[in-house]
Amino acid sequence: MKIPTMRTVAMPADTNPRGDIFGGWIMSQMDLAGGEVARRRAKGKVATVAVSELQFHKPVYVGDYVSCFADIVKVGTTSITVHVETFVERDEAAMEKVTEGTFVFVAIDENRRPRPLDANISVKPKAKTKKKKDWLSGPVSIG
Amino acid sequence: MKIPTMRTVAMPADTNPRGDIFGGWIMSQMDLAGGEVARRRAKGKVATVAVSELQFHKPVYVGDYVSCFADIVKVGTTSITVHVETFVERDEAAMEKVTEGTFVFVAIDENRRPRPLDANISVKPKAKTKKKKDWLSGPVSIG
Amino acid sequence: MKIPTMRTVAMPADTNPRGDIFGGWIMSQMDLAGGEVARRRAKGKVATVAVSELQFHKPVYVGDYVSCFADIVKVGTTSITVHVETFVERDEAAMEKVTEGTFVFVAIDENRRPRPLDANISVKPKAKTKKKKDWLSGPVSIG
Amino acid sequence: MKIPTMRTVAMPADTNPRGDIFGGWIMSQMDLAGGEVARRRAKGKVATVAVSELQFHKPVYVGDYVSCFADIVKVGTTSITVHVETFVERDEAAMEKVTEGTFVFVAIDENRRPRPLDANISVKPKAKTKKKKDWLSGPVSIG
Amino acid sequence: MKIPTMRTVAMPADTNPRGDIFGGWIMSQMDLAGGEVARRRAKGKVATVAVSELQFHKPVYVGDYVSCFADIVKVGTTSITVHVETFVERDEAAMEKVTEGTFVFVAIDENRRPRPLDANISVKPKAKTKKKKDWLSGPVSIG
Amino acid sequence: MKIPTMRTVAMPADTNPRGDIFGGWIMSQMDLAGGEVARRRAKGKVATVAVSELQFHKPVYVGDYVSCFADIVKVGTTSITVHVETFVERDEAAMEKVTEGTFVFVAIDENRRPRPLDANISVKPKAKTKKKKDWLSGPVSIG
Repeated sequence: MKIPTMRTVAMPADTNPRGDIFGGWIMSQMDLAGGEVARRRAKGKVATVAVSELQFHKPVYVGDYVSCFADIVKVGTTSITVHVETFVERDEAAMEKVTEGTFVFVAIDENRRPRPLDANISVKPKAKTKKKKDWLSGPVSIG
Repeated sequence: MKIPTMRTVAMPADTNPRGDIFGGWIMSQMDLAGGEVARRRAKGKVATVAVSELQFHKPVYVGDYVSCFADIVKVGTTSITVHVETFVERDEAAMEKVTEGTFVFVAIDENRRPRPLDANISVKPKAKTKKKKDWLSGPVSIG
Repeated sequence: MKIPTMRTVAMPADTNPRGDIFGGWIMSQMDLAGGEVARRRAKGKVATVAVSELQFHKPVYVGDYVSCFADIVKVGTTSITVHVETFVERDEAAMEKVTEGTFVFVAIDENRRPRPLDANISVKPKAKTKKKKDWLSGPVSIG
Repeated sequence: MKIPTMRTVAMPADTNPRGDIFGGWIMSQMDLAGGEVARRRAKGKVATVAVSELQFHKPVYVGDYVSCFADIVKVGTTSITVHVETFVERDEAAMEKVTEGTFVFVAIDENRRPRPLDANISVKPKAKTKKKKDWLSGPVSIG
Repeated sequence: MKIPTMRTVAMPADTNPRGDIFGGWIMSQMDLAGGEVARRRAKGKVATVAVSELQFHKPVYVGDYVSCFADIVKVGTTSITVHVETFVERDEAAMEKVTEGTFVFVAIDENRRPRPLDANISVKPKAKTKKKKDWLSGPVSIG
Repeated sequence: MKIPTMRTVAMPADTNPRGDIFGGWIMSQMDLAGGEVARRRAKGKVATVAVSELQFHKPVYVGDYVSCFADIVKVGTTSITVHVETFVERDEAAMEKVTEGTFVFVAIDENRRPRPLDANISVKPKAKTKKKKDWLSGPVSIG
């Protein structure tokens, strides 16, 4: 079984006015999960620079066990692209995918400037990953 | 002057481990801002179904006044696409854009099923909006 | 249309045990709104020193869009008095005033001591502002 | 020794951008303390309707033990006026008053309408309480 | 590699006044982790009834990736005893154990009354588990 | 009447997925209460090193006034053992004990190393305190 990068419980404090779990909270978990695998690959600090193709397939409810799985799909000179999928477990039901999206991180140095990645680490991209456009082809300003 | 859809102050409780404002918190503000203009257009509940082309241009710091501006860029049968831009004001400096992205919402009924939008409301899209691919061309499952 | 100094959504995490929005949360938004206009006028840090005539006219509910409007009503040697009004938007209903109150801020320097304000900036007080007693006529201790 | 109505620790999550404790958090504690003594006197639910003469004498810092003392100063037909004082304990220093203010509560029924108070309970007002104007002389709308 | 029951990042909002992560937050994560494995075993709701032998070996810092591993060590008629260990990952360092403790849960029905567990499920206790006293030998009142 | 070390209101944001108050929140209040009396006795910083015999007798509900009472039961060379009891007040009902447990703290210096306690302060242990095993007989690592 695959190991989740983040795993937590959706609590009442995380709800939106409709009563299900707030999308902003879910995106936060995904960002933390993506950042973790990027940080390990970068061997140091990273900053999120872009999110794309993020889809909310199903609602998340209070009490759901929420797992985020993060896989590196591309490594550039300074950037790392990570695909993140979120699954929930609810009562006796099987795990179910609720969201997925692509997060791009840039390795940064102490002054928040892009830092070249070590090229010698091979990363095996997930088979199902399609060609993605390069979010960082232009000049990079990091946030 | 344009009116922000959301405007708040970034507080210490909103920081990430690096000490600047957590990207998940910023995405939450953007989602709330986009949802507000979608809700008005839909005259009722909406759910976020997708986020795309979200870019973090610059970091946000504790104490920044954070404003999100949201503009409808496309209205489909049941979906509303909103472009959201985030600006900060810091000390005496001019307002500065820190993030932007596109959020897609779907109007939903009480049972969380897509609900057709009233077609008679004209929405003037922002001039600078480019062609965007339709996130909802396939079957819709809503979250 | 007037521009709100703060605008946000009341979330389930902001409720009191009765189920409507906690008064402490509403006062927090008002304090941030008042502090923002005071900070701009003071061209630097300010601290809240007093609140008066704060009235809760109507309850705020989960999902309400909450806007705070802040107007400077008096400028002293080191203090700035701000009238803050809170309005909510709910479903299709018109904006409705829910609270209002007067906040007094003092411009402070790096050591938290009162700092004289620049007298050359003219501030046009709101017409409806009545005479208010001076909260800062005695010795000032700042918080 | 007097018994505090509320007593808690000021945590890093409660700070404002200046790094000391956010005034909105302090007002929240005061409101909860005042509401508690009002609830006991009213033998049922109460709602905050007004705050007056709230003064911030000194800043509160992270790690301070914060105590709110609440005393009933006036009981009307449906309203209860409470004076709340906040003290902090810090390291080995003596307890120090940091804020004080007056909160007005109204006893409410299940439909949020003012509810007459039981007149037979005598309340000994604090000696130092001065005459205060009646916040509820006009028609009451409760928040 | 073993799969963590909970895995998250320690954020600035989770700190205590000393600046490291608040013990209450860590105990919360452990409780959620223990509750998850108990819930699976109980095939339904459980309530925490006791915590014992909880030790804080080392501090947790902001930015640490925090993993809780939970193992069932005893199953009674209605109770499930779970040993929970917390590990952190920090920069390039190896995973390090920071806390451990024993949590006892009771399976409950809709009315919060103890509910007999299905005896047919075999649970392989961890080898290193020593004899623990039975927290639930007396009459059970559940919280 | 005894003075509570901590006293606060259980709010909706503190609930677990079942809708009553999250055990992790309750343990947090107990830890803060125990830490306060230990800090006073130690005349300086302390760190929580162990929790034992913590029992949840009854659930805590939203709106409950929650009081923690903390008593020192043993003082070692560097450690202080504190028994903490939690009571709730709800509507017109009498105070009711909901949890209790034993927390061990160690006095620490600026470098987080155990610091000898002043032996000259006599502490009168509570009569009902039974012999407890020494949590700190082995080498101490502090968290």
